[in-house]
Amino acid sequence: MRALVFHGPGRSSWDEVPDPSIQQATDAIVRVDTTTICGTDLHILAGDVPEVRPGTVLGHEAVGEVVETGDAVAGVARGDRVLVSCVSGCGRCRYCREGAYGQCRNGGGWILGHLVDGAQAEYVRVPFADLSLHKLPEDVPAEQAVLLADILPTAHEVGVLNGRVTPGDTVVIVGAGPIGLAAVVTARLYSPGRIVVVDLAPSRLDAAKRLGADDVLQADEDVESAVSAMTDGLGADVVMEAVGVPQSFERCTRLVRPGGHVANIGVHGKPATLHLEDLWIKNLTITTGLVDTATTPALLRMLAGGRLAVSELITHSFALGAMEEAYDVFSRPGETGALKVAVNRV
Amino acid sequence: MRALVFHGPGRSSWDEVPDPSIQQATDAIVRVDTTTICGTDLHILAGDVPEVRPGTVLGHEAVGEVVETGDAVAGVARGDRVLVSCVSGCGRCRYCREGAYGQCRNGGGWILGHLVDGAQAEYVRVPFADLSLHKLPEDVPAEQAVLLADILPTAHEVGVLNGRVTPGDTVVIVGAGPIGLAAVVTARLYSPGRIVVVDLAPSRLDAAKRLGADDVLQADEDVESAVSAMTDGLGADVVMEAVGVPQSFERCTRLVRPGGHVANIGVHGKPATLHLEDLWIKNLTITTGLVDTATTPALLRMLAGGRLAVSELITHSFALGAMEEAYDVFSRPGETGALKVAVNRV
Amino acid sequence: MRALVFHGPGRSSWDEVPDPSIQQATDAIVRVDTTTICGTDLHILAGDVPEVRPGTVLGHEAVGEVVETGDAVAGVARGDRVLVSCVSGCGRCRYCREGAYGQCRNGGGWILGHLVDGAQAEYVRVPFADLSLHKLPEDVPAEQAVLLADILPTAHEVGVLNGRVTPGDTVVIVGAGPIGLAAVVTARLYSPGRIVVVDLAPSRLDAAKRLGADDVLQADEDVESAVSAMTDGLGADVVMEAVGVPQSFERCTRLVRPGGHVANIGVHGKPATLHLEDLWIKNLTITTGLVDTATTPALLRMLAGGRLAVSELITHSFALGAMEEAYDVFSRPGETGALKVAVNRV
Amino acid sequence: MRALVFHGPGRSSWDEVPDPSIQQATDAIVRVDTTTICGTDLHILAGDVPEVRPGTVLGHEAVGEVVETGDAVAGVARGDRVLVSCVSGCGRCRYCREGAYGQCRNGGGWILGHLVDGAQAEYVRVPFADLSLHKLPEDVPAEQAVLLADILPTAHEVGVLNGRVTPGDTVVIVGAGPIGLAAVVTARLYSPGRIVVVDLAPSRLDAAKRLGADDVLQADEDVESAVSAMTDGLGADVVMEAVGVPQSFERCTRLVRPGGHVANIGVHGKPATLHLEDLWIKNLTITTGLVDTATTPALLRMLAGGRLAVSELITHSFALGAMEEAYDVFSRPGETGALKVAVNRV
Repeated sequence: MRALVFHGPGRSSWDEVPDPSIQQATDAIVRVDTTTICGTDLHILAGDVPEVRPGTVLGHEAVGEVVETGDAVAGVARGDRVLVSCVSGCGRCRYCREGAYGQCRNGGGWILGHLVDGAQAEYVRVPFADLSLHKLPEDVPAEQAVLLADILPTAHEVGVLNGRVTPGDTVVIVGAGPIGLAAVVTARLYSPGRIVVVDLAPSRLDAAKRLGADDVLQADEDVESAVSAMTDGLGADVVMEAVGVPQSFERCTRLVRPGGHVANIGVHGKPATLHLEDLWIKNLTITTGLVDTATTPALLRMLAGGRLAVSELITHSFALGAMEEAYDVFSRPGETGALKVAVNRV
Repeated sequence: MRALVFHGPGRSSWDEVPDPSIQQATDAIVRVDTTTICGTDLHILAGDVPEVRPGTVLGHEAVGEVVETGDAVAGVARGDRVLVSCVSGCGRCRYCREGAYGQCRNGGGWILGHLVDGAQAEYVRVPFADLSLHKLPEDVPAEQAVLLADILPTAHEVGVLNGRVTPGDTVVIVGAGPIGLAAVVTARLYSPGRIVVVDLAPSRLDAAKRLGADDVLQADEDVESAVSAMTDGLGADVVMEAVGVPQSFERCTRLVRPGGHVANIGVHGKPATLHLEDLWIKNLTITTGLVDTATTPALLRMLAGGRLAVSELITHSFALGAMEEAYDVFSRPGETGALKVAVNRV
Repeated sequence: MRALVFHGPGRSSWDEVPDPSIQQATDAIVRVDTTTICGTDLHILAGDVPEVRPGTVLGHEAVGEVVETGDAVAGVARGDRVLVSCVSGCGRCRYCREGAYGQCRNGGGWILGHLVDGAQAEYVRVPFADLSLHKLPEDVPAEQAVLLADILPTAHEVGVLNGRVTPGDTVVIVGAGPIGLAAVVTARLYSPGRIVVVDLAPSRLDAAKRLGADDVLQADEDVESAVSAMTDGLGADVVMEAVGVPQSFERCTRLVRPGGHVANIGVHGKPATLHLEDLWIKNLTITTGLVDTATTPALLRMLAGGRLAVSELITHSFALGAMEEAYDVFSRPGETGALKVAVNRV
Repeated sequence: MRALVFHGPGRSSWDEVPDPSIQQATDAIVRVDTTTICGTDLHILAGDVPEVRPGTVLGHEAVGEVVETGDAVAGVARGDRVLVSCVSGCGRCRYCREGAYGQCRNGGGWILGHLVDGAQAEYVRVPFADLSLHKLPEDVPAEQAVLLADILPTAHEVGVLNGRVTPGDTVVIVGAGPIGLAAVVTARLYSPGRIVVVDLAPSRLDAAKRLGADDVLQADEDVESAVSAMTDGLGADVVMEAVGVPQSFERCTRLVRPGGHVANIGVHGKPATLHLEDLWIKNLTITTGLVDTATTPALLRMLAGGRLAVSELITHSFALGAMEEAYDVFSRPGETGALKVAVNRV
């Protein structure tokens, strides 16, 4: 089969590789119908994720059809149309028993396109298939469902639930890339009073407005004063970091009200400064996290019921064979306006 | 009357000052029977809390008797024996309605011995008396009750509840000063599996053991390896910072397990480094906070019922007139072995 | 002034009575601009609430202007436009400290039009004004704001929050009177997957659909089978009782899935049968409750921000002087189609 | 092998039956070292649990050694000393993903000695072994560990956690059989202010005192007045029903304070009357439930750490071959004083 293979920092190609096969009784093989590219894939290509070995097939998001299952797989069967979640779980360790699959102690967590071959390929081997695959209702379009492989549960769990968004809240989301925009969509499920999105790119702020942001702020303006003015000087109830740089995180800790929540969603490569001399007295809750995908089934029910308006998040579609072109478009969002790109078997 | 007056950094004295009087209808005047000294008082004397103006009477912890009440005070009356809580609250702002008295928007919060005259005096004016005073059962000794003015609710709320201590948890408390020791006492209410206390001073580690710590570690040893060994390499479920310096906070973020809680109780004067490049993926919850005293009534019920063994925390007693000596002993714990000192009317 | 006075079961009239005056320092007098009638008022008239003494002015919901305040009132002042909440609170008892104002131990709770004279009058004395009155933004229409005096916080707290409605849930609301319809509106704040409303009256089921119900069921049909079919045989996640009769409550306990919630909002006059022989093993949570109005400020922020579409709930408007006519229309909803009626000063 | 076989209401015997064998890849076979008898077993023998077919081996609690595992079992291996939990779970259905194993949709839940052959035998087949078996530390005595198969997690989850016992609470436990006594032990983990136990049998009230109850009340006295007097007329914060008869449940709803919790642990055969005419306004939370055993790992850590004093709960020990005698003693607690009986391989 063909797959997008990582060849070390800065290098990848759409190569011919052996088809995957069942290795463990809990594995399934899925034919990929739709996959997509994540900001994390660009981090891997940039060399920021050294545990990814050259030769690995990238990608951790897909929709497809089960073509084979190991003997211990009970929840899905050949022919099932499924969502391939970015996170797997053994289902029996302490973390999996609490639904914290992202922290699985027995070889689960985020492994696809990271520690094992991933989903930017014609076929993918999915470990722990019973907990990693979710059957899809027929009428859910693949290009929407694939967003539930990673960015929607990530924004929902790591941003919205960790941040405890509550009806009436003022929510500030710093960063309007795909994950920040998914945070807008999933924050709306809890009826905040106002969603404010901060970014540098006007096109992304426009997208934020279309997806439901009430206010948008240019990141190079005096965001602190603007949020203060919106909240009678108090600060926001919930602030989400969706950029992944220290300055952005530190800004979040200035935007939040006493007693509020700062939910970090961004993937960081450097330490930030935590101004405890100001913050020790502010009753803040700061959270970090990798997605557990424990809420994926609920999000899937909502998508199936027409309760999640996500089609706006897909800006481009490509054929699987044009994977390299898809990477090119996705990696230059300033010029291409790309949010998420769908890559489909044709 | 006589009171301990702050005269600017490094200077205080036991002076004759005018008796306090009712200023607002919600005030009460309390005759101080027992007061104590807090590490924060030493910070004020060191000049670290610039909003305290020279001339202010220090102290925010007391047990005494109500001698006068304003017209709007309904919950206590002349002659009542009361606990004077370190935190006041208007009772009607958004924060007070949620029990977050420490963040009161209408002049409450921590004001005694900070923004208004405090309790290291023969008499003290207590604003918002209905929410700041708690009637004491007769049989609760004043020297124990005074610990509920600040350090027990602080340790309980900002350390134990924010840290969500749960039966069976491994809890690490970094810092065995009075507040860290109060965290040992209040953590035990939730039956952790193991409490580990870290400090430099052997005498404080001894006190920690007497108060219920299961293990103690010298702060200058390899605490990280020791905690890792105790937890099968996973890290502690809950880690509390009770020192107030950056290195200690940063150590806490290394001691905690994925999915665990870091509860900052320490009063910090400098920023810390938050290693988001490691922590973004660890599903941590980091909390900060000033005490709200919302749990003081429950703690009081437990003290009255013999459920809080706190007498060990008081190491010295002085007469009110010996307040300056009490400060001297309290400020040199390394030599004196002082934890909390009781200062009593005689 | 004129007021609607209860004269014993079955008898009330719009009488001339003395103007109210400040009795406690925490009282305020409010000129009533808009009031409304509650199903509970009809219960009182039916003689079902014996603690209401003849001579009492009825009504516990109003919008108006503060005309006088007692000396201890700090949060509102003469001239403020306010919401008069159905529940008062002393602000200092154990329940009020937890925001459970409905259970106040010092003379608060539901007292207006119940234990003291109420708001179906030209003026009303409001005890504990600081916690009972909420300042209104100018642009919030009185006919909408008055719905936040009782039915919206009741439906929200006793129905939706007690029932823990979560995104994606199937929610069944049994009873489509004003409170059941308010439950539809406030349940939507948490993005359930499907809201099903059950009632006998087609006109009320139509109103439910307009307010956001996804499905409506005739109460005399086989509701159990219909809900079972909608939920793959599992039952609903949350079921709310908004009728107040035993049969309806018992039906709710059959409609709920294992692990689900039954939130009773209805005012009951008779015991129900709890089929513990079936339910002991089902992991149910059953809640009852009087509203605390702790969420009224948040609901008010949402109403002001255009996030609560409630205008549909007011079907009729009357002048204050036509109060008796308003009662007549409200008490015959089958014929008049009345949901809530607004009664306005003109 | 030999096993205790149910032969229909009133009839059981210690019979020779075929050894169990692996039927599914997720099964394990465990050699039983210690088992015990549950009140539910007596219900089965009384004919109250009709889904138990004659020929079934009874028993759902054991400690033993794994002798064989199916191909898909990953968490335990031959030779492991394990706890056999009363509840199994598929690990992949909606309920299991939330830790609600008791409600498993794929053949888990309480099945041992109920729908499949149980653990009162020399060997037992354990379905879904990865989630049903818990490895035991060497130094945990089998006679203590076996209490974690059912009664300790049941009391902890269905009684203490559902009832939300909080430090300082007044907790009333109605029924001092093994499950009520296990509720005393596990309630203490949360430091209630006072535990009150109600029962008819003085010997059981004595046992309650030994296990940590602060007060005991004879069930035929005026328990309502006694609890009212203990709580300043307010009622208890948490009341647990551990008898399983309507009168006892109804009493619980009278003993609880407004805003309190009634946690039903009892197995009921008849409906109870729920006095909604009194309770609708009391903000009660009533819960029911079958144990999920989600907290078994934490309880096991606590038992291993010496934090659960449970040895008092075992009153008699028998050899496996004396199983019928063990039943006889256990079924006549009034005469024998039996709480739990241990039945051991010798």
